[in-house]
Amino acid sequence: MRGRLVDSLATTDAMAALFADESIIGGMLRFETALAQSEAACGVIPVPAAEAIARLAGSAAEYDAAAIAREARHSATPAIPFVRMLTARVAGVDPASARFVHFGATSQDVLDTALVLALVRARALIAADHGRLVASLMALSDRHAATVMLGRTILQPGPPVTFGLKAAIWCDAVSVAGARLLHAFDAAARVQFGGAVGTRAALGAHGDEVADRLADALGLSRSAAPWHTQRDSLGSLVGAAGLYVASLGKLARDVSLMMQDEVGEVAERGGGSSTMPHKRNPSASAIVLASVARMPGLVAAFLSGMSQEHERGIGGWHAEAPTLSAAVQATASALDASCGLVDHLEVFPDRMRANIDRTRGVIFAERLTLALVPTVGRDEAARLVAEALATIRDGGRTFGDVIRSMPAITAVLSADLVSTVDSPDAYLGSAEQIRQRLLAAHRPLPT
Amino acid sequence: MRGRLVDSLATTDAMAALFADESIIGGMLRFETALAQSEAACGVIPVPAAEAIARLAGSAAEYDAAAIAREARHSATPAIPFVRMLTARVAGVDPASARFVHFGATSQDVLDTALVLALVRARALIAADHGRLVASLMALSDRHAATVMLGRTILQPGPPVTFGLKAAIWCDAVSVAGARLLHAFDAAARVQFGGAVGTRAALGAHGDEVADRLADALGLSRSAAPWHTQRDSLGSLVGAAGLYVASLGKLARDVSLMMQDEVGEVAERGGGSSTMPHKRNPSASAIVLASVARMPGLVAAFLSGMSQEHERGIGGWHAEAPTLSAAVQATASALDASCGLVDHLEVFPDRMRANIDRTRGVIFAERLTLALVPTVGRDEAARLVAEALATIRDGGRTFGDVIRSMPAITAVLSADLVSTVDSPDAYLGSAEQIRQRLLAAHRPLPT
Amino acid sequence: MRGRLVDSLATTDAMAALFADESIIGGMLRFETALAQSEAACGVIPVPAAEAIARLAGSAAEYDAAAIAREARHSATPAIPFVRMLTARVAGVDPASARFVHFGATSQDVLDTALVLALVRARALIAADHGRLVASLMALSDRHAATVMLGRTILQPGPPVTFGLKAAIWCDAVSVAGARLLHAFDAAARVQFGGAVGTRAALGAHGDEVADRLADALGLSRSAAPWHTQRDSLGSLVGAAGLYVASLGKLARDVSLMMQDEVGEVAERGGGSSTMPHKRNPSASAIVLASVARMPGLVAAFLSGMSQEHERGIGGWHAEAPTLSAAVQATASALDASCGLVDHLEVFPDRMRANIDRTRGVIFAERLTLALVPTVGRDEAARLVAEALATIRDGGRTFGDVIRSMPAITAVLSADLVSTVDSPDAYLGSAEQIRQRLLAAHRPLPT
Amino acid sequence: MRGRLVDSLATTDAMAALFADESIIGGMLRFETALAQSEAACGVIPVPAAEAIARLAGSAAEYDAAAIAREARHSATPAIPFVRMLTARVAGVDPASARFVHFGATSQDVLDTALVLALVRARALIAADHGRLVASLMALSDRHAATVMLGRTILQPGPPVTFGLKAAIWCDAVSVAGARLLHAFDAAARVQFGGAVGTRAALGAHGDEVADRLADALGLSRSAAPWHTQRDSLGSLVGAAGLYVASLGKLARDVSLMMQDEVGEVAERGGGSSTMPHKRNPSASAIVLASVARMPGLVAAFLSGMSQEHERGIGGWHAEAPTLSAAVQATASALDASCGLVDHLEVFPDRMRANIDRTRGVIFAERLTLALVPTVGRDEAARLVAEALATIRDGGRTFGDVIRSMPAITAVLSADLVSTVDSPDAYLGSAEQIRQRLLAAHRPLPT
Repeated sequence: MRGRLVDSLATTDAMAALFADESIIGGMLRFETALAQSEAACGVIPVPAAEAIARLAGSAAEYDAAAIAREARHSATPAIPFVRMLTARVAGVDPASARFVHFGATSQDVLDTALVLALVRARALIAADHGRLVASLMALSDRHAATVMLGRTILQPGPPVTFGLKAAIWCDAVSVAGARLLHAFDAAARVQFGGAVGTRAALGAHGDEVADRLADALGLSRSAAPWHTQRDSLGSLVGAAGLYVASLGKLARDVSLMMQDEVGEVAERGGGSSTMPHKRNPSASAIVLASVARMPGLVAAFLSGMSQEHERGIGGWHAEAPTLSAAVQATASALDASCGLVDHLEVFPDRMRANIDRTRGVIFAERLTLALVPTVGRDEAARLVAEALATIRDGGRTFGDVIRSMPAITAVLSADLVSTVDSPDAYLGSAEQIRQRLLAAHRPLPT
Repeated sequence: MRGRLVDSLATTDAMAALFADESIIGGMLRFETALAQSEAACGVIPVPAAEAIARLAGSAAEYDAAAIAREARHSATPAIPFVRMLTARVAGVDPASARFVHFGATSQDVLDTALVLALVRARALIAADHGRLVASLMALSDRHAATVMLGRTILQPGPPVTFGLKAAIWCDAVSVAGARLLHAFDAAARVQFGGAVGTRAALGAHGDEVADRLADALGLSRSAAPWHTQRDSLGSLVGAAGLYVASLGKLARDVSLMMQDEVGEVAERGGGSSTMPHKRNPSASAIVLASVARMPGLVAAFLSGMSQEHERGIGGWHAEAPTLSAAVQATASALDASCGLVDHLEVFPDRMRANIDRTRGVIFAERLTLALVPTVGRDEAARLVAEALATIRDGGRTFGDVIRSMPAITAVLSADLVSTVDSPDAYLGSAEQIRQRLLAAHRPLPT
Repeated sequence: MRGRLVDSLATTDAMAALFADESIIGGMLRFETALAQSEAACGVIPVPAAEAIARLAGSAAEYDAAAIAREARHSATPAIPFVRMLTARVAGVDPASARFVHFGATSQDVLDTALVLALVRARALIAADHGRLVASLMALSDRHAATVMLGRTILQPGPPVTFGLKAAIWCDAVSVAGARLLHAFDAAARVQFGGAVGTRAALGAHGDEVADRLADALGLSRSAAPWHTQRDSLGSLVGAAGLYVASLGKLARDVSLMMQDEVGEVAERGGGSSTMPHKRNPSASAIVLASVARMPGLVAAFLSGMSQEHERGIGGWHAEAPTLSAAVQATASALDASCGLVDHLEVFPDRMRANIDRTRGVIFAERLTLALVPTVGRDEAARLVAEALATIRDGGRTFGDVIRSMPAITAVLSADLVSTVDSPDAYLGSAEQIRQRLLAAHRPLPT
Repeated sequence: MRGRLVDSLATTDAMAALFADESIIGGMLRFETALAQSEAACGVIPVPAAEAIARLAGSAAEYDAAAIAREARHSATPAIPFVRMLTARVAGVDPASARFVHFGATSQDVLDTALVLALVRARALIAADHGRLVASLMALSDRHAATVMLGRTILQPGPPVTFGLKAAIWCDAVSVAGARLLHAFDAAARVQFGGAVGTRAALGAHGDEVADRLADALGLSRSAAPWHTQRDSLGSLVGAAGLYVASLGKLARDVSLMMQDEVGEVAERGGGSSTMPHKRNPSASAIVLASVARMPGLVAAFLSGMSQEHERGIGGWHAEAPTLSAAVQATASALDASCGLVDHLEVFPDRMRANIDRTRGVIFAERLTLALVPTVGRDEAARLVAEALATIRDGGRTFGDVIRSMPAITAVLSADLVSTVDSPDAYLGSAEQIRQRLLAAHRPLPT
């Protein structure tokens, strides 16, 4: 079995199965039998031929995938040896019907459609996990609407936020990118059928009708035209997957940072270590971040092959299948890991509060400065705040203590502000309104 | 002046100006004055202060961009030296008002918004050229609806298509990708305003109102939340630009191939050579294809920085501006070249016909095979066609001649088919229907 | 079986086997047994324990790869379930010895080394094919040292070159890049052994000795230090593979262009078409160009994960295995196809000559201009050449004819130059010297 | 002025100047004058003509760079308008000599060489900063040879390392990648001179001699052949830059993580915040990590254009200049920031020790396990360690305390081990030997 270990953090079992040989051959079989039936329905080929093809095609498991892969290297596509094998199977029993196998189609028609059929099933897997993830993030955010923690910018502490807001931002990013991804899957779910050069010439006047029936039979969208060198819908899908994984990466990056021993604000269920019995590793984050590292290159790889020559291109098209399958699998891997991560995330509000406290309130220096500026001016405000910060650095006191002991400050600020100047809960601004707005956009409608 | 020569094929003058220092400083000035006015309108700062800021801010040309750029390397953002300079300008005249410069904003707020304001103007440039290109391609396709030419797959000749269909496919690809790109520009046109950690805390209860007024004043969309680490709208824009350039690349690739001396089916107006007086180079294609080579990497570069840490990230955000500006400029360069290419494209239908003729009709072997299969079976059809092809290879005759002299073939096919078996016009399938459908989707509505 | 069809143009059977489960498990087994033996030799663990581990470890086929892959998603590495299974196997028979399995190693040690062992075998495959390709290209160049053809710049005709020179340039590009690639494989062939944080602490004073013995036992280079987060040697390998594939791509691009029907200067053995009996497709070129489209993104993907955190990173390392294996396989695929392409390349010198002739000599306009300039000046030279070119455009005459009939030209040039001005063989400059120099650098030394 | 702000974190002033218009025009002027002189020395053109060209060419500042850039979009290269302007300048004074400007060269010759001349100067800038960085890292490592700190894997604490070892790993990574980069600069420093199609045909028998003299005059390597479509040396340079920046990124990533408030082990000099007076931001790390995010895409962009057509390509070559200049500037930006970072890095050994202490010794669980295994077996060892870990989790005791109170453990281990089981200094393995080996490879030889 190829590459299961090497790719173990790059796919899931369920998604790998969709791009495995049996699935692809199955898709090609569906295409060829549906094509024959559509052509028969239009009178292009005899009805008994279509029936024979459907009856004799057999199942994917009956095809020698290794041989198809090997011969693909001669013809630069697995479709040609596959069609030859299918024809031989039919011809072995019913030579007259075998004449009508793959009638009027080109190798790219069958392979593109087989990949699209795999994508349709991939969409279902991703949609299910995505829905679960969004719901979990929403619940997480709601649970921690009032859980105060440090805001952090450029990896340094800033004024407070809530963990609920942070989770809402994760949720929003994932939701927006997920909606785009699912839409891209839908847009890509269209039949490919153009014949040799995209004119459906072999079908005479029946080309469009056959194409539409074929789409219907396969549960795919009809396509205004063949898309042999118009790869936008696949490119858009891979790009959307790149953006989606980036949004999962934001979540995983934050969690892995918050799970550092010195920070200790959350914990993944985690995986163990082969050597260190005390360890609980952010394994899910690692798996997500692995996809994050890989996806930009995979998106680039797909884009690099998109400007394809004439009616059917050279090289660009031939590069697509491995990149497309790798990109979708990397997405599924990151999504699966994200679901596990969020579902089992432990949150430690006490540590969040403690991390605020250990700054001794210097994160409120901005607040104080802005409060002082209108009264004493920017320069004097800066001088006073710097004086307070210096006092803190030198001794063990907190920002609030120091401020409350500086008459130059207490004289010009309201008593209320002086007393709450270092209270995290008093300096959250619009955090809760923003949180609610972010989630509202993605909440399911009440039924 | 930096890099005009090095980047001469990577931008246009008009687009370069939008990302030049004066434009970015201008955007930052617009942000700061609109912010002050919005805050004054909400009672957050005094109205006279806002008026003073607007009055004293001055024009972009009055700022020392070189100094800003130099100091940016200390603070990791040009916004900090810019805000300092602006404050100093105001303070020089009206120290009391200077206290309210940049009130409650963070450096990322001003720089993100300045970039967005540049993008709004970039959209207008691109929309205009894009509209022109689509109209030209549509007209080109209509003019050549009946111009027959070789279809080509994997760079080898196949059955015929029309040049009108080829141009319609270009038009469709460009239209679809262009619509997505313009939509992505629109989605990115939103204000950034969150303050230090995205809670707008310094604004107290007025955060959302200030943000909304600011958006309105700048002609940008309101934003449900700050997007300090939610870079999806920019990532989506860069990705859409990548897909758009790929669609232009398809056009340029085809033109450059068709313009080869031995093919000679079209000609760009072209550029000369420094050494070869006879040459007419596909210069526009070269410029388009240069962007095609660069864009996948630029898309990857943007995606690579998107999973940003906590409330404002480290590195990822700092990587965006050069990539975003390079990507938008590369897009404008390719689009500008494409417009010139299509507007001055010469088409040589005679050479298209001649290239069909020089195949001596072997491209109709598929047609004949499919016609024979139902009657004589796949094997016999293949045998007959192979016999005909061998005859052609050995002598100077054409496929039609040979076919019409083979009784085994003429006996089983209709006289009509025998006589037109090698007529390109008789084997175009649904080319014209497909062409019309492709264009119909993008034609302007009748008025 | 996963992805054989999807990846059929992305690997070869032989190379895929090296990254398949059995190979990777085999490498991990080699690491663990060699580690135990090295530790026993240093007195770190009992000799009988090492013997038991070696005896009981079993073969790769005895391990449940599917289970390892599945569990890898919990621990973020397949090494942990593998070590657990190995330990259980030993413990089932000899619990005392099982205590010493994987002693002092970390999961990254075993997986990195297993990948390196696969790379060592990959190098051998690539070296063999590479040597064959270089030899074929050299012979091709020698055979066609005097075969004159059009030079082409920006896809337009220019003065002549020889096909021998073109093949020598291919050979040089492939040779230079190939030497770098093989060197990079060698540099990557070093043991990984650092223990939990790279200090080999569990080994006490024996760490370095065990590491060196382990390297020797596995036939790998000793390593001055563990390279848990110093991924330069792998990154350099992937980068070198990218450059190598680009050099193969130059060859394939040229061949596919020369094989166009209208150009017809070479032909691949080619693959057939599922629909078009007359076609001979440049299938090998297509396969090479598929890798060309994919490799830049794979290189980017690897680089994106290289800046890894602290003693062992999160995400970046976890992203490597799929990218590394995909990159090496894509290289092997392109190389295999290139060998087939060159070995069976048909060359048509007559068509090369005919393509020169069909330019009617205008490609010599540069030559004439440069010859005239010293005598009549740049402006007059340009005027005369333009006059000649216009005459040719209007009628059926050739450049030579026209030139020889213009007294303003014949009066100022030597008779010899006038008579050979449009002779390709007379305007090859240093083509042959350059060709010989290029090949000399890569020819095997005489024995 | 274009893009100074947008690119402020993407270049340095000194490096930007090398790719600015004046530098590139200067390089083109050097090429053309040296070419004329070399040709005169070989008797290809008159000596007075070469002298006139050198005398009249003028300085870069006298050329209208904006006009060159604008016209470049017609001819797809700035070289053509530049050569026209140069010729016009010479012709204005000495028409006879103007005939010999750019004699026998092609536009790519002059532009490639001008870029190479910029690279030669870029190498000097990078070499100087690189040398400084390596020396600083070496000194940093030596100073902290005995400074013990937590090892961290997957962002979780592990057994101890020394900060000296960590700095030595940074130093080694930077040194290895820097040596490769400087070597790649050297390999790229070769003249480009091939004429229209790379045969130097216009030079007759003097082509090679002129090329060699030209190389010598410009201080560049002679080149066995023109490299119009053999872009390996530039691709290798860009790839090496990618690896170098990745090595700087490892350093910056670690520093930014260690500088987190909760970790507090080091501090950059840092930059301030526009809003938060208390903040000291890891600005240098941010600048380095910005290049880290961008470089993989830039490398991919260069690779994507490398398989160039025939004698001079279309698009791929035209894409190189912007990518090459962006990549070299991004490298210089990261290197400059790294130098500042390391030169001013504050190190806090007390916090390093404190972070070890706050784990209460659980990081020594591995050590204890391995020590117990030989005596009590793997299962019992695991049980005992788990018991100890549970005890710690429940109360306030440390690992050492707990261990020393467990008779089942003290009975089977040496008194020495029991007393030092949680001593960081006693569990550093080969850290110091590895550190010394790593640095020894890069230390300057004693003089």
